Amino acid sequence: MDFKTEFKPLTVQPQEIEGKSFEIITEELGEHPFTEQQYPVVQRIIHASADFELGRSLVFHKDAIEAGIKSIREGRTVVADVQMIQAGVSKERLERFGGGIKVYISDPDVMEEAKRLNTTRAIISMRKAIKEADGGIYAIGNAPTALLELIRLVKEGQARPGLIIGMPVGFVSAAESKDELRKLDIPFITNIGRKGGSTIVVSAINAISIMATALK
Amino acid sequence: MDFKTEFKPLTVQPQEIEGKSFEIITEELGEHPFTEQQYPVVQRIIHASADFELGRSLVFHKDAIEAGIKSIREGRTVVADVQMIQAGVSKERLERFGGGIKVYISDPDVMEEAKRLNTTRAIISMRKAIKEADGGIYAIGNAPTALLELIRLVKEGQARPGLIIGMPVGFVSAAESKDELRKLDIPFITNIGRKGGSTIVVSAINAISIMATALK
Repeated sequence: MDFKTEFKPLTVQPQEIEGKSFEIITEELGEHPFTEQQYPVVQRIIHASADFELGRSLVFHKDAIEAGIKSIREGRTVVADVQMIQAGVSKERLERFGGGIKVYISDPDVMEEAKRLNTTRAIISMRKAIKEADGGIYAIGNAPTALLELIRLVKEGQARPGLIIGMPVGFVSAAESKDELRKLDIPFITNIGRKGGSTIVVSAINAISIMATALK
Repeated sequence: MDFKTEFKPLTVQPQEIEGKSFEIITEELGEHPFTEQQYPVVQRIIHASADFELGRSLVFHKDAIEAGIKSIREGRTVVADVQMIQAGVSKERLERFGGGIKVYISDPDVMEEAKRLNTTRAIISMRKAIKEADGGIYAIGNAPTALLELIRLVKEGQARPGLIIGMPVGFVSAAESKDELRKLDIPFITNIGRKGGSTIVVSAINAISIMATALK
Protein backbone atom coordinates (compact mmCIF):
# COMPACT_ATOMS: atom_id res chain seq x y z
CA MET A 1 0.00 0.00 0.00
CA ASP A 2 1.10 3.59 -0.49
CA PHE A 3 0.23 6.08 2.22
CA LYS A 4 -0.60 9.60 1.18
CA THR A 5 -0.33 12.11 3.98
CA GLU A 6 -1.14 15.47 2.36
CA PHE A 7 -4.35 15.70 4.37
CA LYS A 8 -3.98 16.18 8.10
CA PRO A 9 -7.08 15.31 10.16
CA LEU A 10 -7.73 17.53 13.17
CA THR A 11 -6.56 14.88 15.61
CA VAL A 12 -5.14 11.53 14.73
CA GLN A 13 -4.03 9.95 18.00
CA PRO A 14 -6.70 7.61 19.41
CA GLN A 15 -5.54 8.20 23.01
CA GLU A 16 -5.52 11.94 22.46
CA ILE A 17 -9.04 11.85 20.96
CA GLU A 18 -10.37 9.86 23.91
CA GLY A 19 -8.71 12.07 26.51
CA LYS A 20 -10.00 15.24 24.88
CA SER A 21 -13.50 13.73 24.59
CA PHE A 22 -13.54 12.80 28.27
CA GLU A 23 -12.54 16.36 29.20
CA ILE A 24 -15.39 17.80 27.13
CA ILE A 25 -17.86 15.37 28.69
CA THR A 26 -16.84 16.22 32.25
CA GLU A 27 -17.05 19.92 31.48
CA GLU A 28 -20.44 19.79 29.75
CA LEU A 29 -22.01 17.35 32.17
CA GLY A 30 -21.29 19.59 35.14
CA GLU A 31 -22.89 18.52 38.39
CA HIS A 32 -24.20 14.99 38.53
CA PRO A 33 -25.43 12.50 41.11
CA PHE A 34 -22.94 9.71 40.39
CA THR A 35 -20.25 8.35 42.70
CA GLU A 36 -16.58 8.31 41.80
CA GLN A 37 -16.87 4.58 41.08
CA GLN A 38 -19.92 5.00 38.86
CA TYR A 39 -18.67 7.98 36.90
CA PRO A 40 -16.31 6.11 34.51
CA VAL A 41 -19.32 4.11 33.28
CA VAL A 42 -21.40 7.26 32.81
CA GLN A 43 -18.54 8.99 31.03
CA ARG A 44 -17.92 6.12 28.64
CA ILE A 45 -21.63 5.79 27.84
CA ILE A 46 -21.86 9.48 27.00
CA HIS A 47 -18.69 9.08 24.92
CA ALA A 48 -20.35 6.31 22.90
CA SER A 49 -23.69 8.08 22.46
CA ALA A 50 -22.97 11.83 22.63
CA ASP A 51 -26.18 11.81 24.63
CA PHE A 52 -26.09 13.61 27.98
CA GLU A 53 -29.79 12.94 28.55
CA LEU A 54 -29.07 9.22 28.34
CA GLY A 55 -26.06 9.62 30.63
CA ARG A 56 -28.15 11.44 33.24
CA SER A 57 -30.85 8.75 33.07
CA LEU A 58 -28.50 6.01 34.28
CA VAL A 59 -29.37 4.24 37.51
CA PHE A 60 -26.94 2.13 39.53
CA HIS A 61 -27.67 -0.37 42.26
CA LYS A 62 -25.36 0.59 45.14
CA ASP A 63 -23.24 -2.56 44.71
CA ALA A 64 -23.19 -2.53 40.91
CA ILE A 65 -19.63 -1.46 40.15
CA GLU A 66 -18.04 -3.53 42.88
CA ALA A 67 -20.01 -6.59 41.76
CA GLY A 68 -19.08 -6.04 38.12
CA ILE A 69 -15.39 -5.72 38.92
CA LYS A 70 -15.53 -8.84 41.10
CA SER A 71 -17.28 -10.79 38.36
CA ILE A 72 -14.66 -9.89 35.78
CA ARG A 73 -11.73 -10.52 38.11
CA GLU A 74 -13.15 -13.95 38.95
CA GLY A 75 -13.14 -14.74 35.24
CA ARG A 76 -16.88 -15.26 35.02
CA THR A 77 -18.54 -15.29 31.63
CA VAL A 78 -20.34 -12.20 30.37
CA VAL A 79 -23.62 -13.20 28.70
CA ALA A 80 -24.94 -10.78 26.06
CA ASP A 81 -28.27 -10.81 24.28
CA VAL A 82 -26.89 -10.00 20.81
CA GLN A 83 -23.71 -10.48 18.74
CA MET A 84 -23.08 -6.76 18.38
CA ILE A 85 -22.21 -6.57 22.08
CA GLN A 86 -19.84 -9.52 21.71
CA ALA A 87 -18.16 -7.78 18.76
CA GLY A 88 -17.73 -4.49 20.62
CA VAL A 89 -16.47 -5.66 24.00
CA SER A 90 -12.74 -5.65 24.64
CA LYS A 91 -12.14 -9.40 24.88
CA GLU A 92 -8.48 -9.10 25.94
CA ARG A 93 -9.41 -7.55 29.27
CA LEU A 94 -11.91 -10.34 30.05
CA GLU A 95 -9.55 -13.08 28.92
CA ARG A 96 -6.76 -11.75 31.11
CA PHE A 97 -8.81 -13.03 34.08
CA GLY A 98 -9.88 -16.23 32.35
CA GLY A 99 -13.27 -14.88 31.33
CA GLY A 100 -15.00 -14.27 28.03
CA ILE A 101 -18.31 -13.31 26.47
CA LYS A 102 -21.10 -15.56 25.19
CA VAL A 103 -24.21 -15.02 23.10
CA TYR A 104 -26.78 -17.78 22.72
CA ILE A 105 -29.43 -16.12 20.54
CA SER A 106 -28.28 -17.69 17.27
CA ASP A 107 -27.61 -21.18 18.61
CA PRO A 108 -29.55 -23.78 16.59
CA ASP A 109 -31.19 -25.28 19.70
CA VAL A 110 -32.31 -21.83 20.84
CA MET A 111 -33.76 -20.97 17.44
CA GLU A 112 -35.56 -24.30 17.28
CA GLU A 113 -37.08 -24.00 20.75
CA ALA A 114 -38.21 -20.42 20.16
CA LYS A 115 -40.00 -21.55 17.03
CA ARG A 116 -41.59 -24.51 18.79
CA LEU A 117 -42.84 -22.37 21.70
CA ASN A 118 -43.78 -19.46 19.43
CA THR A 119 -41.75 -17.03 21.52
CA THR A 120 -38.61 -14.91 21.09
CA ARG A 121 -35.15 -16.35 20.65
CA ALA A 122 -34.08 -13.76 23.24
CA ILE A 123 -36.21 -15.43 25.92
CA ILE A 124 -34.93 -18.89 25.13
CA SER A 125 -31.34 -17.62 25.03
CA MET A 126 -31.66 -16.49 28.65
CA ARG A 127 -33.00 -19.91 29.67
CA LYS A 128 -29.94 -21.44 28.06
CA ALA A 129 -27.59 -18.87 29.60
CA ILE A 130 -28.57 -19.66 33.18
CA LYS A 131 -27.67 -23.29 32.54
CA GLU A 132 -24.40 -22.65 30.71
CA ALA A 133 -22.91 -19.51 32.25
CA ASP A 134 -24.74 -18.24 35.31
CA GLY A 135 -23.11 -16.06 37.96
CA GLY A 136 -21.41 -13.40 35.85
CA ILE A 137 -22.54 -10.23 34.11
CA TYR A 138 -25.70 -10.37 32.00
CA ALA A 139 -25.57 -7.63 29.37
CA ILE A 140 -28.82 -6.84 27.60
CA GLY A 141 -28.96 -4.02 25.08
CA ASN A 142 -31.65 -5.04 22.65
CA ALA A 143 -34.36 -7.41 23.73
CA PRO A 144 -36.77 -6.36 26.49
CA THR A 145 -38.09 -9.91 26.44
CA ALA A 146 -34.62 -11.19 27.40
CA LEU A 147 -34.47 -8.80 30.34
CA LEU A 148 -38.01 -9.62 31.51
CA GLU A 149 -37.25 -13.33 31.30
CA LEU A 150 -33.99 -12.90 33.23
CA ILE A 151 -35.85 -10.96 35.95
CA ARG A 152 -38.36 -13.80 36.17
CA LEU A 153 -35.56 -16.35 36.47
CA VAL A 154 -33.93 -14.29 39.24
CA LYS A 155 -37.21 -14.04 41.15
CA GLU A 156 -37.65 -17.80 40.88
CA GLY A 157 -34.13 -18.39 42.14
CA GLN A 158 -33.08 -20.01 38.87
CA ALA A 159 -30.59 -17.28 37.92
CA ARG A 160 -27.94 -15.70 40.15
CA PRO A 161 -26.36 -12.86 38.17
CA GLY A 162 -23.26 -11.14 39.48
CA LEU A 163 -24.49 -7.99 37.76
CA ILE A 164 -27.26 -7.21 35.29
CA ILE A 165 -26.56 -4.48 32.76
CA GLY A 166 -30.07 -4.01 31.43
CA MET A 167 -30.49 -1.31 28.81
CA PRO A 168 -32.66 -2.62 25.99
CA VAL A 169 -33.68 0.08 23.52
CA GLY A 170 -37.12 0.44 22.03
CA PHE A 171 -40.75 1.36 22.04
CA VAL A 172 -42.43 -1.84 23.20
CA SER A 173 -41.64 -3.06 26.73
CA ALA A 174 -38.11 -1.59 26.89
CA ALA A 175 -38.81 1.11 29.48
CA GLU A 176 -41.14 -1.24 31.37
CA SER A 177 -38.51 -3.98 31.55
CA LYS A 178 -36.08 -1.49 33.13
CA ASP A 179 -38.73 -0.44 35.64
CA GLU A 180 -38.93 -4.09 36.68
CA LEU A 181 -35.15 -4.40 36.89
CA ARG A 182 -34.91 -1.43 39.25
CA LYS A 183 -37.19 -3.22 41.70
CA LEU A 184 -34.68 -6.04 42.18
CA ASP A 185 -32.28 -5.89 45.10
CA ILE A 186 -29.35 -7.36 43.22
CA PRO A 187 -26.56 -5.45 41.46
CA PHE A 188 -27.79 -3.76 38.28
CA ILE A 189 -26.97 -0.91 35.92
CA THR A 190 -29.87 0.44 33.91
CA ASN A 191 -31.46 3.67 32.73
CA ILE A 192 -34.87 5.24 32.76
CA GLY A 193 -36.76 5.33 29.48
CA ARG A 194 -36.62 3.91 25.99
CA LYS A 195 -33.01 4.56 25.11
CA GLY A 196 -30.19 2.04 25.32
CA GLY A 197 -28.63 -0.35 22.84
CA SER A 198 -25.57 -2.44 22.12
CA THR A 199 -23.03 0.40 22.01
CA ILE A 200 -24.24 1.67 25.39
CA VAL A 201 -23.95 -1.74 27.00
CA VAL A 202 -20.52 -2.30 25.46
CA SER A 203 -19.37 0.99 26.99
CA ALA A 204 -20.52 -0.11 30.43
CA ILE A 205 -18.74 -3.47 30.20
CA ASN A 206 -15.55 -1.88 28.89
CA ALA A 207 -15.57 0.78 31.61
CA ILE A 208 -15.90 -1.89 34.30
CA SER A 209 -13.26 -4.13 32.75
CA ILE A 210 -10.85 -1.19 32.63
CA MET A 211 -11.47 -0.64 36.35
CA ALA A 212 -10.99 -4.36 37.00
CA THR A 213 -7.69 -4.32 35.12
CA ALA A 214 -6.43 -1.14 36.83
CA LEU A 215 -6.76 -2.78 40.26
CA LYS A 216 -3.47 -4.57 39.84
CA MET B 1 -33.58 -27.70 28.38
CA ASP B 2 -36.84 -27.21 30.18
CA PHE B 3 -38.94 -24.21 29.30
CA LYS B 4 -40.97 -22.57 32.02
CA THR B 5 -43.79 -20.42 30.73
CA GLU B 6 -45.55 -19.12 33.84
CA PHE B 7 -44.48 -15.58 33.11
CA LYS B 8 -46.03 -13.92 30.09
CA PRO B 9 -44.10 -10.92 28.72
CA LEU B 10 -46.21 -8.08 27.35
CA THR B 11 -45.45 -9.01 23.76
CA VAL B 12 -43.41 -11.94 22.61
CA GLN B 13 -43.64 -11.97 18.82
CA PRO B 14 -40.68 -10.22 17.21
CA GLN B 15 -42.68 -9.22 14.10
CA GLU B 16 -45.46 -7.91 16.30
CA ILE B 17 -43.00 -5.88 18.42
CA GLU B 18 -41.43 -4.34 15.34
CA GLY B 19 -44.76 -3.49 13.73
CA LYS B 20 -46.08 -1.90 16.91
CA SER B 21 -42.82 0.06 17.35
CA PHE B 22 -43.00 1.40 13.81
CA GLU B 23 -46.58 2.57 14.41
CA ILE B 24 -45.54 4.44 17.56
CA ILE B 25 -42.61 6.05 15.73
CA THR B 26 -44.77 7.27 12.84
CA GLU B 27 -47.34 8.64 15.25
CA GLU B 28 -44.87 10.42 17.54
CA LEU B 29 -42.66 11.74 14.75
CA GLY B 30 -45.58 13.46 13.07
CA GLU B 31 -44.67 15.78 10.20
CA HIS B 32 -41.19 15.37 8.79
CA PRO B 33 -39.18 16.48 5.77
CA PHE B 34 -38.25 13.02 4.46
CA THR B 35 -39.30 11.41 1.19
CA GLU B 36 -41.17 8.12 1.00
CA GLN B 37 -37.93 6.42 -0.04
CA GLN B 38 -35.92 7.95 2.82
CA TYR B 39 -38.47 7.33 5.55
CA PRO B 40 -37.75 3.60 6.12
CA VAL B 41 -34.17 4.54 6.99
CA VAL B 42 -35.31 7.27 9.37
CA GLN B 43 -37.85 4.94 10.97
CA ARG B 44 -35.35 2.14 11.52
CA ILE B 45 -32.77 4.52 12.97
CA ILE B 46 -35.30 5.89 15.44
CA HIS B 47 -36.28 2.29 16.23
CA ALA B 48 -32.67 1.47 17.09
CA SER B 49 -32.02 4.61 19.14
CA ALA B 50 -35.38 5.71 20.53
CA ASP B 51 -34.06 9.14 19.63
CA PHE B 52 -36.35 11.39 17.60
CA GLU B 53 -33.86 14.24 17.75
CA LEU B 54 -31.30 12.03 16.02
CA GLY B 55 -33.93 10.90 13.49
CA ARG B 56 -34.80 14.50 12.65
CA SER B 57 -31.12 15.38 12.25
CA LEU B 58 -30.62 12.95 9.35
CA VAL B 59 -29.57 14.38 6.00
CA PHE B 60 -29.82 12.51 2.70
CA HIS B 61 -28.16 13.28 -0.59
CA LYS B 62 -30.96 13.22 -3.17
CA ASP B 63 -29.62 10.04 -4.82
CA ALA B 64 -28.69 8.25 -1.57
CA ILE B 65 -31.38 5.58 -1.35
CA GLU B 66 -31.38 4.73 -5.02
CA ALA B 67 -27.57 4.45 -5.00
CA GLY B 68 -27.62 2.28 -1.88
CA ILE B 69 -30.19 -0.10 -3.35
CA LYS B 70 -28.23 -0.30 -6.61
CA SER B 71 -25.00 -1.03 -4.74
CA ILE B 72 -26.57 -3.88 -2.78
CA ARG B 73 -28.33 -5.36 -5.79
CA GLU B 74 -25.07 -5.33 -7.73
CA GLY B 75 -23.53 -7.39 -4.94
CA ARG B 76 -20.92 -4.79 -4.06
CA THR B 77 -19.08 -5.08 -0.76
CA VAL B 78 -20.14 -2.95 2.19
CA VAL B 79 -17.05 -1.59 3.97
CA ALA B 80 -17.53 -0.75 7.66
CA ASP B 81 -15.14 1.01 10.00
CA VAL B 82 -15.68 -1.34 12.97
CA GLN B 83 -16.61 -4.96 13.71
CA MET B 84 -19.80 -4.04 15.58
CA ILE B 85 -21.36 -2.93 12.30
CA GLN B 86 -20.33 -6.19 10.65
CA ALA B 87 -21.92 -8.12 13.53
CA GLY B 88 -25.19 -6.22 13.36
CA VAL B 89 -25.85 -6.11 9.64
CA SER B 90 -28.17 -8.72 8.15
CA LYS B 91 -25.65 -10.68 6.07
CA GLU B 92 -28.25 -12.89 4.38
CA ARG B 93 -29.75 -9.97 2.50
CA LEU B 94 -26.34 -8.85 1.18
CA GLU B 95 -25.28 -12.38 0.28
CA ARG B 96 -28.47 -12.96 -1.68
CA PHE B 97 -27.07 -10.55 -4.28
CA GLY B 98 -23.53 -11.87 -4.00
CA GLY B 99 -22.36 -9.13 -1.66
CA GLY B 100 -21.01 -9.04 1.88
CA ILE B 101 -19.45 -6.80 4.46
CA LYS B 102 -15.77 -6.19 5.23
CA VAL B 103 -13.88 -4.48 8.04
CA TYR B 104 -10.15 -3.84 7.73
CA ILE B 105 -9.37 -2.07 11.02
CA SER B 106 -7.99 -5.15 12.78
CA ASP B 107 -6.00 -6.54 9.87
CA PRO B 108 -2.35 -7.06 10.88
CA ASP B 109 -1.02 -4.99 7.95
CA VAL B 110 -3.35 -2.11 8.85
CA MET B 111 -2.32 -2.19 12.50
CA GLU B 112 1.34 -2.28 11.56
CA GLU B 113 1.11 0.63 9.13
CA ALA B 114 -0.88 2.76 11.56
CA LYS B 115 1.82 2.24 14.15
CA ARG B 116 4.58 3.01 11.67
CA LEU B 117 2.90 6.24 10.52
CA ASN B 118 1.73 7.17 14.03
CA THR B 119 -1.85 7.59 12.86
CA THR B 120 -5.19 5.86 13.44
CA ARG B 121 -5.96 2.34 12.27
CA ALA B 122 -9.24 3.81 10.98
CA ILE B 123 -7.39 5.99 8.48
CA ILE B 124 -5.23 3.16 7.23
CA SER B 125 -8.26 0.85 7.01
CA MET B 126 -9.87 3.26 4.53
CA ARG B 127 -6.69 3.32 2.43
CA LYS B 128 -6.84 -0.46 2.31
CA ALA B 129 -10.59 -0.48 1.59
CA ILE B 130 -10.32 1.60 -1.57
CA LYS B 131 -7.83 -0.94 -2.93
CA GLU B 132 -9.75 -4.04 -1.88
CA ALA B 133 -13.44 -3.17 -2.13
CA ASP B 134 -14.16 0.22 -3.70
CA GLY B 135 -17.47 1.09 -5.35
CA GLY B 136 -19.97 -0.10 -2.75
CA ILE B 137 -21.35 1.33 0.48
CA TYR B 138 -18.89 2.76 3.00
CA ALA B 139 -20.44 2.61 6.47
CA ILE B 140 -18.73 4.65 9.16
CA GLY B 141 -20.22 4.79 12.64
CA ASN B 142 -17.26 5.34 14.91
CA ALA B 143 -14.15 6.95 13.57
CA PRO B 144 -14.28 10.55 12.34
CA THR B 145 -10.73 10.04 11.08
CA ALA B 146 -11.98 7.25 8.80
CA LEU B 147 -14.68 9.49 7.36
CA LEU B 148 -12.28 12.44 6.87
CA GLU B 149 -9.79 10.17 5.15
CA LEU B 150 -12.48 8.72 2.88
CA ILE B 151 -13.60 12.22 1.93
CA ARG B 152 -10.00 13.10 1.07
CA LEU B 153 -9.71 9.98 -1.07
CA VAL B 154 -12.95 10.84 -2.89
CA LYS B 155 -11.75 14.38 -3.58
CA GLU B 156 -8.49 13.04 -4.97
CA GLY B 157 -10.37 10.62 -7.21
CA GLN B 158 -8.90 7.60 -5.44
CA ALA B 159 -12.22 6.38 -3.98
CA ARG B 160 -15.52 6.01 -5.83
CA PRO B 161 -18.13 5.07 -3.23
CA GLY B 162 -21.59 3.98 -4.33
CA LEU B 163 -22.90 5.51 -1.09
CA ILE B 164 -21.29 6.85 2.05
CA ILE B 165 -23.18 6.28 5.29
CA GLY B 166 -21.20 8.59 7.53
CA MET B 167 -22.40 8.85 11.11
CA PRO B 168 -19.42 8.69 13.45
CA VAL B 169 -20.32 9.49 17.06
CA GLY B 170 -18.24 11.62 19.35
CA PHE B 171 -16.89 14.84 20.69
CA VAL B 172 -13.73 15.33 18.65
CA SER B 173 -14.10 15.84 14.88
CA ALA B 174 -17.33 13.79 14.53
CA ALA B 175 -19.68 16.69 13.76
CA GLU B 176 -16.99 18.38 11.67
CA SER B 177 -16.41 15.24 9.58
CA LYS B 178 -20.13 15.13 8.77
CA ASP B 179 -20.09 18.80 7.78
CA GLU B 180 -17.39 17.90 5.27
CA LEU B 181 -19.36 14.92 4.00
CA ARG B 182 -22.40 17.08 3.30
CA LYS B 183 -20.32 19.23 0.95
CA LEU B 184 -19.67 16.30 -1.40
CA ASP B 185 -21.93 15.82 -4.39
CA ILE B 186 -21.96 12.06 -4.22
CA PRO B 187 -24.62 9.88 -2.54
CA PHE B 188 -24.43 10.09 1.25
CA ILE B 189 -26.53 9.58 4.35
CA THR B 190 -25.43 11.47 7.43
CA ASN B 191 -26.71 13.53 10.33
CA ILE B 192 -25.99 16.88 11.88
CA GLY B 193 -24.14 16.88 15.19
CA ARG B 194 -22.23 14.56 17.47
CA LYS B 195 -24.59 11.59 17.60
CA GLY B 196 -24.32 8.43 15.55
CA GLY B 197 -22.71 5.06 16.17
CA SER B 198 -22.66 1.46 15.04
CA THR B 199 -26.30 0.64 15.78
CA ILE B 200 -27.45 3.70 13.81
CA VAL B 201 -25.35 2.76 10.80
CA VAL B 202 -26.52 -0.87 10.98
CA SER B 203 -30.13 0.35 10.91
CA ALA B 204 -29.48 2.37 7.77
CA ILE B 205 -27.83 -0.54 5.97
CA ASN B 206 -30.56 -2.96 7.00
CA ALA B 207 -33.31 -0.57 5.92
CA ILE B 208 -31.72 -0.19 2.48
CA SER B 209 -31.09 -3.92 2.11
CA ILE B 210 -34.75 -4.60 2.95
CA MET B 211 -35.76 -2.18 0.21
CA ALA B 212 -33.29 -3.82 -2.18
CA THR B 213 -34.75 -7.23 -1.41
CA ALA B 214 -38.38 -6.08 -1.73
CA LEU B 215 -37.77 -4.93 -5.30
CA LYS B 216 -38.21 -8.41 -6.68
